[in-house]
Amino acid sequence: MESDVQTILAGEIRPASRLIRRVEDGDLSVRPLLRALYRHGGRAQIVGLTGSPGVGKSTLTDQLIAAWRAEGKRVAILAVDPTSPFTGGAILGDRIRMSRHFTDGNVFIRSMATRGHLGGLARATGEAVQVLDAAGWEVILIETVGVGQAEVEIIHLAETVVLAVAPGEGDDVQAAKAGIMEIAHVFAVNKAKREGAERTAQMIEEMLNFRDESAADYWRPPVVKTEALDGRGIRKLIEAIDGRRRFLETHPKAAAEARRLRARQMLTETLKSLAADRFIGAREGDEAFRKILDDIAGRREDPYTAAEKLLSG
Amino acid sequence: MESDVQTILAGEIRPASRLIRRVEDGDLSVRPLLRALYRHGGRAQIVGLTGSPGVGKSTLTDQLIAAWRAEGKRVAILAVDPTSPFTGGAILGDRIRMSRHFTDGNVFIRSMATRGHLGGLARATGEAVQVLDAAGWEVILIETVGVGQAEVEIIHLAETVVLAVAPGEGDDVQAAKAGIMEIAHVFAVNKAKREGAERTAQMIEEMLNFRDESAADYWRPPVVKTEALDGRGIRKLIEAIDGRRRFLETHPKAAAEARRLRARQMLTETLKSLAADRFIGAREGDEAFRKILDDIAGRREDPYTAAEKLLSG
Repeated sequence: MESDVQTILAGEIRPASRLIRRVEDGDLSVRPLLRALYRHGGRAQIVGLTGSPGVGKSTLTDQLIAAWRAEGKRVAILAVDPTSPFTGGAILGDRIRMSRHFTDGNVFIRSMATRGHLGGLARATGEAVQVLDAAGWEVILIETVGVGQAEVEIIHLAETVVLAVAPGEGDDVQAAKAGIMEIAHVFAVNKAKREGAERTAQMIEEMLNFRDESAADYWRPPVVKTEALDGRGIRKLIEAIDGRRRFLETHPKAAAEARRLRARQMLTETLKSLAADRFIGAREGDEAFRKILDDIAGRREDPYTAAEKLLSG
Repeated sequence: MESDVQTILAGEIRPASRLIRRVEDGDLSVRPLLRALYRHGGRAQIVGLTGSPGVGKSTLTDQLIAAWRAEGKRVAILAVDPTSPFTGGAILGDRIRMSRHFTDGNVFIRSMATRGHLGGLARATGEAVQVLDAAGWEVILIETVGVGQAEVEIIHLAETVVLAVAPGEGDDVQAAKAGIMEIAHVFAVNKAKREGAERTAQMIEEMLNFRDESAADYWRPPVVKTEALDGRGIRKLIEAIDGRRRFLETHPKAAAEARRLRARQMLTETLKSLAADRFIGAREGDEAFRKILDDIAGRREDPYTAAEKLLSG
């Protein structure tokens, strides 16, 4: 294990990649390794990119990789977008869009999935971020479709969340009551050449005007128009993302609160997976546990009472 | 509370609907009510319907509702399909497809979402199923996009899982290694009039030929061709779903194992939510807990050690 820690900290890709695979598999024996790596992290710029399907997230990601690489940064991408229940067709398509970076040893691209029964995608993605962070990747981009609950949880792992919006989605944006709008630190109105882009950008700005900006540590999300196909606006998008980082550096209270939120997210996922492992996974095959399941199935016990009994030992 | 239990058991829609809303909100005060209702359930036929986006699940659902209603059954639909992060555009579209059933008091249609921080979509959907089951709905159909992890977990709540496949998805089906294929009890090749439907159905049959059918309680999933737009094949699909139910009635060992799997799924979700609530949610605002979060954020503590300490009291 010690040698794994050393090679991963030295930035070697293969052991890190193997560890991420085991994390996805829900392999519990990697916990000591993750634990040892954790204290070496904390330097990476963690960016989340989310938005509806078809808004052009993969093409944006491709452009962002190119821009970060031009700055000499090592870039890791975690893509969480399993649109097909079968082979992950969309992911394959996405990868093709980023294919020009495949031979670049300073770009790490990984599609995240979970094959394990315990623990979830949010936990696996969070742990993959920790591995890459410890391994010295300077930018870690988490790309999600941002629709399911798991995806929203995942996005809480990012320091800066970019919400990609398509022209015409403005009405939806205005109608959105809570949740996704609140977690965006930067808006990217993509496909800016398309009709309605200007109007959509304005609608987002107007919506932001309604927010209370009086707090000393209020961050107003910039709205950037991008055209991922030809790279227009990408520079401004990078500036907006970096602007958020500078803001956090100069607003310690806001930064502490953001860090706490991310710590809470990691802790929640870890705790859920530990609890499921300890009280359910570890008892698989156990005769008494089988009886509990049969009692629930037979309606002699309800799952709440059973779960409370398990938790209380 | 006692009066709520009575009105819900009597089949009144409003209190059941209100309770499901509170379940989605992650309102913990409803647990005693859920607990009281649980032992009254167990009679409903719970069907899961999943498949890739665009395969025609909502139109299939619409046809299934019509067929079940023709049999005089009361039908509840839980749709888990938030394709837009904003207003749930896809759900609105889906609802329109089922709109002819809106005025039918014996059809309950609900789009599931979670707004609460603790507990997830799988837990909320599972609890909604329990409420509807206790309330005497004879068929409960859970419709999911079946792509994300939460959706796969949700589908484990169903007694019979229908996987809808589009013509041409056959190659994907063959390439699929694990997971979704194994949970299907019935395959519906929808859009059967389209080219490639026959070939896709054959590929699924061939794949099923490779399975070991020698076990006494082996259920071979039927492959049904459907055309949801005009209702062709829906009768056969209903027969396949009912066939699975009869199979379970005549194979007690297989039925017990299936019930155990569902009990395990409910117990896991309940336990995770209880643990997150007890060890994290209940400590919100607590100074010592804030310190734990700050220690994790500051890399003085790792989330695994912190979670273990919390779990061990």
